[in-house]
Amino acid sequence: MEIKFKAIGIAHSPFRKKEDIGPYLYSNSNALEQVQGELEIFKEYEAGLKDVECFSHLIVIFLFHKCQGFKLQTVPFGDDKMRGIFATRSPHRPNPIGLTTVKIIKRQGNIIKVAGVDMFEGTPILDLKPYTPKDQNRLSSWVGWKIGRK
Amino acid sequence: MEIKFKAIGIAHSPFRKKEDIGPYLYSNSNALEQVQGELEIFKEYEAGLKDVECFSHLIVIFLFHKCQGFKLQTVPFGDDKMRGIFATRSPHRPNPIGLTTVKIIKRQGNIIKVAGVDMFEGTPILDLKPYTPKDQNRLSSWVGWKIGRK
Repeated sequence: MEIKFKAIGIAHSPFRKKEDIGPYLYSNSNALEQVQGELEIFKEYEAGLKDVECFSHLIVIFLFHKCQGFKLQTVPFGDDKMRGIFATRSPHRPNPIGLTTVKIIKRQGNIIKVAGVDMFEGTPILDLKPYTPKDQNRLSSWVGWKIGRK
Repeated sequence: MEIKFKAIGIAHSPFRKKEDIGPYLYSNSNALEQVQGELEIFKEYEAGLKDVECFSHLIVIFLFHKCQGFKLQTVPFGDDKMRGIFATRSPHRPNPIGLTTVKIIKRQGNIIKVAGVDMFEGTPILDLKPYTPKDQNRLSSWVGWKIGRK
């Protein structure tokens, strides 16, 4: 079964090539959170943005449009072992779907100014969702590799 | 531009129709977190699952396969105002992409037993991602409608 989607907008960011998104962005979360950009949602979907600014953060689902092909296993940044692609956030996935959470600064019509952008300039946006308690309240969870478990 | 994806697996859950997923599941998060199911990833992608069980939770990106068409605004459950679709988690979206976070119980080959399933039986799965600090550490965020902001 083939599943077809279309872009609802595009992301604007200071990042234009792979070298612009250095590891420092991920090893220092403050650095990433200071990167500002815009989510330009196409005019035909603008009515769908009503009240998104009532939330502090938005989840952005996007296309890794610079990726071609995929790998089933990869060595993640900062790791030294091969891991399954679904145990990583690598863009080289069977379906090149990206997921990030950005902070809303303000919305003006179909343009949402945000911080914490880790997408390239021109990234096609597939969906936006409000960041809700179910996304956050994983109090019993550990995050990252569980040392000792594997 | 048309974007094409394909299912990497399907979800198994006790929910078969809309009435099975009652509002009580969402008003009482314990109820939802106790719902167990399975993520059956197609054999051709099994190698991509290596070490997913090192994480406590997985993010599941899936297709709202029972939805046809979309609305740009809707009144969310428990609310009394029309909100933009992107300010809600309604399934009736321009791209019917669903997002949830489930707890991993165990993995056996291409089958991941999980808890906290809010997908229907037979839901096509598009992607799995590990739940990481960037998904959780939104300490300055508020979640839900900001009273007074709007």
